[in-house]
Amino acid sequence: MRLPADTPYLYQEIFAQPQVLTTLLLEESERAKAIVQAARDRDIRMIVMAARGSSDNAALYGKYLFGAMVGLPVAMATPSLFTLYQRPPRLAGTLVVGISQSGQSTDIVTVVETAAQQGAMTLAITNDPDSPLAQVAEFVLPLHAGEERSIAATKTYTAQLMALALLATHWAENKTAWRELTAVPAAVSQALSLADNVARMTERYRYMNTCVVIGRGYNYATAYEIALKLKELTYVVAEPYSSADFQHGPIAVIGDGFPVLLIAPQGRVHPEIQRLAERLRERGAELLAISDVPETLALARTPLPLPAQLPEWLTPFTAVVLGQLFAYHLTLTKDYDPDHPRGLTKVTQTR
Amino acid sequence: MRLPADTPYLYQEIFAQPQVLTTLLLEESERAKAIVQAARDRDIRMIVMAARGSSDNAALYGKYLFGAMVGLPVAMATPSLFTLYQRPPRLAGTLVVGISQSGQSTDIVTVVETAAQQGAMTLAITNDPDSPLAQVAEFVLPLHAGEERSIAATKTYTAQLMALALLATHWAENKTAWRELTAVPAAVSQALSLADNVARMTERYRYMNTCVVIGRGYNYATAYEIALKLKELTYVVAEPYSSADFQHGPIAVIGDGFPVLLIAPQGRVHPEIQRLAERLRERGAELLAISDVPETLALARTPLPLPAQLPEWLTPFTAVVLGQLFAYHLTLTKDYDPDHPRGLTKVTQTR
Repeated sequence: MRLPADTPYLYQEIFAQPQVLTTLLLEESERAKAIVQAARDRDIRMIVMAARGSSDNAALYGKYLFGAMVGLPVAMATPSLFTLYQRPPRLAGTLVVGISQSGQSTDIVTVVETAAQQGAMTLAITNDPDSPLAQVAEFVLPLHAGEERSIAATKTYTAQLMALALLATHWAENKTAWRELTAVPAAVSQALSLADNVARMTERYRYMNTCVVIGRGYNYATAYEIALKLKELTYVVAEPYSSADFQHGPIAVIGDGFPVLLIAPQGRVHPEIQRLAERLRERGAELLAISDVPETLALARTPLPLPAQLPEWLTPFTAVVLGQLFAYHLTLTKDYDPDHPRGLTKVTQTR
Repeated sequence: MRLPADTPYLYQEIFAQPQVLTTLLLEESERAKAIVQAARDRDIRMIVMAARGSSDNAALYGKYLFGAMVGLPVAMATPSLFTLYQRPPRLAGTLVVGISQSGQSTDIVTVVETAAQQGAMTLAITNDPDSPLAQVAEFVLPLHAGEERSIAATKTYTAQLMALALLATHWAENKTAWRELTAVPAAVSQALSLADNVARMTERYRYMNTCVVIGRGYNYATAYEIALKLKELTYVVAEPYSSADFQHGPIAVIGDGFPVLLIAPQGRVHPEIQRLAERLRERGAELLAISDVPETLALARTPLPLPAQLPEWLTPFTAVVLGQLFAYHLTLTKDYDPDHPRGLTKVTQTR
């Protein structure tokens, strides 16, 4: 596809994803295998992940992936214990994974560096194999996503999902999963072919100021990432929830017309999301649904049909693409600049 | 203090907190010691916490507490892996803590039950020692909070914080911490004495629809819990963030007049929150601050002074009380019913 020269970087990067994912599959599968072998040799019993922003959302996908496929509990790091409080927990015997597009955020580098000093196995998943994060980690899995010029991360997010899926698939020695994984780039291409449909849907939300985004299980991460794109790009206060957490209190915010975006692909989580969708409709919510299930799409004021070709555990790749497209087009609808969200820079430094 | 008979349960329960905390300190310290001894005997290296809603926010406090004081990594459970996917991670060798006011949510009970079957050490922290959660756990730490009749949890939240603080203090064998902990009930009383001041502050926010609540470290949990009270009671879409995560993208939502509530007591985290406060002021945000630091209060359009008598690690007890009071009075200001938020029931069942 040839794009006009003034196409926003964000759009170009969203559409680069099939190529980035294919490259990563081809280039890094062997390295992922070697990393997993090292983890097995060291009898790793637990994983700790350290990340911020979109990378933290990718880590959340990893939490479900390593739990379900490898049987390993995954904890999210508490960087302030390493930096501000200087009271890091004991991490020997764990695999500590730092995930960062730039590899530069001080807090994430400090977590991985401290873990390495404690004797933990450490891995950096980053788009910059020369970054400080890569330098302090024992193992590096580079993303090969090419420079990301738009401030809102898209192609590096799905590349991080792929890096984690590569590791989990090899760790589980699951041949079926590997075959399924190789179908992801084509499925993402198909999701991208729906861009025009998504574009038509955003006009209605020109004056949306808040919304809730709901997913669970593998797509809990997707809810977080789509909500983050909406906040970064459209300044909509989009709050992500698991369908279970949402019912323990926050559902009170739902009144007539309140917009709720449901991530609802077929699979184990779907029946629960469907029940919640019905309950939300009764309360007058305006539903948007990313789904490949006709009954769910039928309940939604704004259906965003998902190509139905991936098993549930891989739908985070395609579902997030529809969310990226929705956020991108809503940004244009609201007359904001997709490449330069207010108040953000590409590399964010936190301690 | 004698309250009129038609005082909302919520108000009564907020004001019951000093007594509840004292009772818990007196009644359960020995049991907490015994639980900790059992954990030591079994050489526990990691903690997994399972909870929903306010209890999940208390668990978040536990994550920092056990990390900083005991050096143990803490993972939040992924209940859907146990229930919907039936692929639970391996938990042998860990301490699995289920936290639930009612002890009835199926997903939390399932996590603890599965962990017990796997041979993990299990503990229920609950207000109902006869609940299903208490029955499946090997150890039970009852909260003694008395029946909680208001739907929004208040006294059981701070009781859960206290239960976790008791465990961590004994585990760390930290006498100073123990002495500090015994000062909490009196400090909470003092925070409650500021209720009239807080009440006067809420009128201004009658038409606030969204806000952001920011805390970090020990008070990350406080940000989550105050945001949840605001959602449950006032239907404000209140989104909680750590000051670090907030700067990795979400800060883009901040425009002129956007309300941001900062949890900013003195301590290791304070300088970072103060810098963020200055940055937010430059961007025109409306700041509310719960703080005992004069410079921070001076930056806020709505200062909510915190009594300055607790060390940082215990400020979550007093800071949340100011947040509870703010949410309570804002509920009245908005003419909502504090005891019966729309769409909620006291016990929420999720799988």
